Amino acid sequence: MSILVVGSVALDTVETPSGRVDNALGGAAVYFSMAARHFDEVRMVAVVGNDFPEDHVEMLRKAGIDIKGLVREEGKTFRWAGKYFDELNRRETLLTELGVFEKFRPKIPRGWENTNHVFLANIDPELQLSVLDQVGKPRVTAFDTMNFWIERKPDVLKELLKRVDVIVINDEEAKMLGKHSSVLAAARAIRGMGPRWVVIKQGEYGAVMFSDHGVFSAPALLLDDVRDPTGAGDTFAGGFMGALAKSPRLDDEAFRRAIIVGSVLASFSVEDFSLGRLAMVTKEEVWGRYRTFEELARIPPYFSS
Amino acid sequence: MSILVVGSVALDTVETPSGRVDNALGGAAVYFSMAARHFDEVRMVAVVGNDFPEDHVEMLRKAGIDIKGLVREEGKTFRWAGKYFDELNRRETLLTELGVFEKFRPKIPRGWENTNHVFLANIDPELQLSVLDQVGKPRVTAFDTMNFWIERKPDVLKELLKRVDVIVINDEEAKMLGKHSSVLAAARAIRGMGPRWVVIKQGEYGAVMFSDHGVFSAPALLLDDVRDPTGAGDTFAGGFMGALAKSPRLDDEAFRRAIIVGSVLASFSVEDFSLGRLAMVTKEEVWGRYRTFEELARIPPYFSS
Repeated sequence: MSILVVGSVALDTVETPSGRVDNALGGAAVYFSMAARHFDEVRMVAVVGNDFPEDHVEMLRKAGIDIKGLVREEGKTFRWAGKYFDELNRRETLLTELGVFEKFRPKIPRGWENTNHVFLANIDPELQLSVLDQVGKPRVTAFDTMNFWIERKPDVLKELLKRVDVIVINDEEAKMLGKHSSVLAAARAIRGMGPRWVVIKQGEYGAVMFSDHGVFSAPALLLDDVRDPTGAGDTFAGGFMGALAKSPRLDDEAFRRAIIVGSVLASFSVEDFSLGRLAMVTKEEVWGRYRTFEELARIPPYFSS
Repeated sequence: MSILVVGSVALDTVETPSGRVDNALGGAAVYFSMAARHFDEVRMVAVVGNDFPEDHVEMLRKAGIDIKGLVREEGKTFRWAGKYFDELNRRETLLTELGVFEKFRPKIPRGWENTNHVFLANIDPELQLSVLDQVGKPRVTAFDTMNFWIERKPDVLKELLKRVDVIVINDEEAKMLGKHSSVLAAARAIRGMGPRWVVIKQGEYGAVMFSDHGVFSAPALLLDDVRDPTGAGDTFAGGFMGALAKSPRLDDEAFRRAIIVGSVLASFSVEDFSLGRLAMVTKEEVWGRYRTFEELARIPPYFSS
């Protein structure tokens, strides 16, 4: 099978209590791809400027990402700068320079129209819709969005919601989109808008998934050394879509497993800045940490008598 | 075996978006007992005033709670009034009238010195210490506390921490007591102060336990109809201690099961005001909801190939 991701490629400047990087490789499409690549062929559609280092292109290619859809245009690559505080739960955006990303109009390369897993990372919902118009009928379509679009383009978002299978979104955004301050009520409202699976990322508290099969609650792995949370959500989505692509059947088991695989990949990603850790993760490490999650959440049987 | 609880018995006036009760039966020792009674003999040490309705005494007795240690004194019963907002995550205390609770000096009745499970609900840590001086060497000693005591009596609390096996505490208080804004670091710091088991209640996110066996993460059951969260923490503690008392061995399995049993009882308690739901819960319902928690957290195996 195959996985298509459409989203940002960026140069990130990030400061956390553990240190700092300048113009490091980042962006939703990059984190997503580097997680999903463990499970299936990944196809990236994104844009960079002529300042984008050839080294990064080479790294992605060597990692096995198909970058036929990575377009280079005249101008600057999307740059983001941010600073994390406290225990990394709070961040401040210091700079957002869209550069060539401002005029990004995703074009699905010929031959990729029938990619059977499609992930629309957080971009303008009109562009997300335009991608759906360019692909056939994927096996799974998932997307992410943010408060900015929920506020500015609610009607476009509504159209989009009717056409996707899965929404992967964070706690706060879910409550905003579902117009409820209870996560259960919000998730139910969102499911009423279209997606059969609502996946809500809760940061240090894990993730929760709502579907026809009920609710699945995934724990968070508490880590000693979180160096940089940037990209954790997109890494989660990459592991999630990768695991679905690898699953012969799209049943409740496959979706639950996908949630844990996403959590596993995200837990690696935050251990270093940029792709420092994520690019190094092996299949064996993914499996090993999956078992750690199993143990973390394991509930023993009730009293036998 | 047997379980001793020392704590408040109160008349609560509570307002939530679902309604209101006036001077309803409440207090940590009451919620605790009504949860723990499903598993073992429960002995209550507490104080009420001469305004305390005989009906409540009768209810506790009929529920099988041993109230030999429930002393009635001249004066008013402890009264608390509070209002919950939003999705019940925020509350405001409107009234705290200590009444006879102000001069509460817990005295363990003769014959109860060797109760083998002791829970010290949230009261002045000096009184909690005085209870430990009156009992032998229980199989399990657990306690709860709050920010007020962490700030006012840190030294007494330190003494107490050296003498208990388990601390059951909420998220914020754990971070305050452990002096870390990461729950992992805070829990580790608290374990360094004495208790081998640190149980942290995270409200709508569940609970997490730290011990020699590592970390156990328990999910929260998302409920449609939370009417009154008052007493949820003490109900949790009651189910937790009850399940430990019923467990032949105090191994990791027993503690994990106890966390889920506590969560189960708490999930019932919040479905109605005061003891409205908790007093009605049957053993079969407890078992049934335990299975709901198992299903909620169930992680399928990793890919077989």
